[in-house]
Amino acid sequence: MSNYAAIQTYAFQSAASIIAGRHSITTLRDRLQMMGEIRSALLVTGSAMESLGVVDELTLQLNSAGISLQVLKGVVQEPTIGNIEQLFSSIAGEHFDALIGLGGGSILDAAKILSVMKTNEKPLREMLGTDLIPRRGVPLVLIPTTSGTGSEVTPNAIVTLPEEELKVGIISRYLLPQLAILDPMLTLQLPKQITAATGMDAFTHAFESFISNKANPISDMFAMESIRRISRSIVEAYQDGGSIEARENMLLGSMYGGMALTGAGTAAVHALAYPLGGKFHIPHGVANSMLLPHVTEFNLDAISNRLTNVAQAMGFRHDVSMTASQAADFVLTRISEWIKELQIPQNLAEYGVTEADVEALAQAASKVTRLLNNNPKAMSLDHIQDVYKKLLPK
Amino acid sequence: MSNYAAIQTYAFQSAASIIAGRHSITTLRDRLQMMGEIRSALLVTGSAMESLGVVDELTLQLNSAGISLQVLKGVVQEPTIGNIEQLFSSIAGEHFDALIGLGGGSILDAAKILSVMKTNEKPLREMLGTDLIPRRGVPLVLIPTTSGTGSEVTPNAIVTLPEEELKVGIISRYLLPQLAILDPMLTLQLPKQITAATGMDAFTHAFESFISNKANPISDMFAMESIRRISRSIVEAYQDGGSIEARENMLLGSMYGGMALTGAGTAAVHALAYPLGGKFHIPHGVANSMLLPHVTEFNLDAISNRLTNVAQAMGFRHDVSMTASQAADFVLTRISEWIKELQIPQNLAEYGVTEADVEALAQAASKVTRLLNNNPKAMSLDHIQDVYKKLLPK
Repeated sequence: MSNYAAIQTYAFQSAASIIAGRHSITTLRDRLQMMGEIRSALLVTGSAMESLGVVDELTLQLNSAGISLQVLKGVVQEPTIGNIEQLFSSIAGEHFDALIGLGGGSILDAAKILSVMKTNEKPLREMLGTDLIPRRGVPLVLIPTTSGTGSEVTPNAIVTLPEEELKVGIISRYLLPQLAILDPMLTLQLPKQITAATGMDAFTHAFESFISNKANPISDMFAMESIRRISRSIVEAYQDGGSIEARENMLLGSMYGGMALTGAGTAAVHALAYPLGGKFHIPHGVANSMLLPHVTEFNLDAISNRLTNVAQAMGFRHDVSMTASQAADFVLTRISEWIKELQIPQNLAEYGVTEADVEALAQAASKVTRLLNNNPKAMSLDHIQDVYKKLLPK
Repeated sequence: MSNYAAIQTYAFQSAASIIAGRHSITTLRDRLQMMGEIRSALLVTGSAMESLGVVDELTLQLNSAGISLQVLKGVVQEPTIGNIEQLFSSIAGEHFDALIGLGGGSILDAAKILSVMKTNEKPLREMLGTDLIPRRGVPLVLIPTTSGTGSEVTPNAIVTLPEEELKVGIISRYLLPQLAILDPMLTLQLPKQITAATGMDAFTHAFESFISNKANPISDMFAMESIRRISRSIVEAYQDGGSIEARENMLLGSMYGGMALTGAGTAAVHALAYPLGGKFHIPHGVANSMLLPHVTEFNLDAISNRLTNVAQAMGFRHDVSMTASQAADFVLTRISEWIKELQIPQNLAEYGVTEADVEALAQAASKVTRLLNNNPKAMSLDHIQDVYKKLLPK
């Protein structure tokens, strides 16, 4: 292990309570009853869980305990401020004892934000940033159905500002749920493409947390365990979506990735991904996967002392010793293999990005200092442009 | 990794927030201010922290933010119900916005119990057991000064019933603190004997959690990391108490041990230790250390598939393969070496136990079914007697 000379004090926080395992969603009713007088709940979810019958099952489960359940759909992919404000006004004046988010990262983030909008008069726009939410929200349960963001255990939510073509983070301990439920059965039907992109997103969270300037002994433990589980199962989950074991590894790996980034933060990959999402609507996981190899190559000389651990967690043979350059090769090769295997796009032109956009993208990325500051090597505007250009046809 | 056929659903909960690292105690004031309107706090502590000047420092720190601090001492080692009730009446009628526990496991457990006694009318005796505390307590901050119980992150507190010569657990999510602060600087002065006993206690938490029938993917991660850190540092912390790195490893290892046991529970070692504490006042860590090798030998055939991982975490060479019996040998040998190195007593007679006491001890231990049920191999009364007899002179 390296020492952490730069960091003396480090922090960790998470969901107050976590329930995991196959069919763990069947415990929701009992858990809600332990949370206090819960008579009514709002379920924020999407069409996928509705058509799989999960919404009906939850309705029956909660109704049987006298808890009424209202369903709110309509969260768009990587939601804009406007989308969330519109959802909020659709439930204005209604009271709920609990909010339940059931879905991917966008839905969980929306549920988190709605929960604090319900208890704070402050407009959403004034809560963007770190620690700007005055009061605790409505009690919150988060149930992920993808294995990507780890949002169910982080104090973060991301929204898009369309007019500024930017994605912005809201960070507050009041965005942490009372309960996270990780039921791998809910992820068995996840389409291949989403399995790939969200899985790579989760890996990127763990990887960036591990090399972050804010890495510490707690975040490192979660990052290593996340990398171990994801490396073992990402290809299997993609090729054989019905493998419960692979799905469970991915779901736990994604949660540990969230726990790692809560303590250590993500870095340049995420900073450069934000403008690609904000301006060109490239899904967050895809943008991260595209950028990861190139940002890692840029970082290489600054992170060589950490890559031995990463390589081991990714499956490098334990019974032979390893040089720093072998470790780097192993990590980069493995990531490239995954990108091929999982058919992650590697060309920004497919999303309409041209050479002419690179400068503006780099300008926007360079403003995400909250994340760039975590990067183990400083990135100039030129460095950022170089990375984007590597993803454009020569 | 083994599979977890027996367990489908598993749970995890911890302190709402954790701050760790050297001098992290200096952040207490800022953290208290983030917890709401805190104007007055009660500090439950002991003479050690007072004579080291830590109490004065905390008083200055909190007073500078307008927070008054009242000090409560008098928690006895492994406190009885009567001791806690008497402390409670000494603060009856007084209001505190927060409770701070600063000390070893006994003090932290006392602070946890006092925090819920302050907000619940129910007599303490009626809260013994699992989930019998009706209401959340006074906001609680726990600051361990030993590396043993992991109490700062568990929902458990242990009290002694002297008339029944028994130790009993109180388990409730309301015993979890809002904040745990892990500052290794506070543990640098810990005497050798306490370093040894508490360190072995922490190791036992991790070890028993890992082989528990309730072990699961989350508890295993914490158990492994606990075993790794403790194995690396327990002898160094004992021999060179001023080694900050060893102390930090022990403090984190102890916290991870607490996190592991929260999910998986401890097992027969702890069940057999309770009567030794209740009747003969053998310190908890010493009792655990004495029992660990003998209970592990008894369990051996039921846990052989898990000991490979334990051996690796304890430092077995990574570059050679290992049979199950090599793993078992390595683990048992290493534990025996520690017991010698750390001068842990290995003779119950030193504490006044005679052959004639064994039957009653075994009877008492056999009633701790909450923990015996976690043991990977059923223990009859005869088995339990055999273990105790191994710790008496032939």
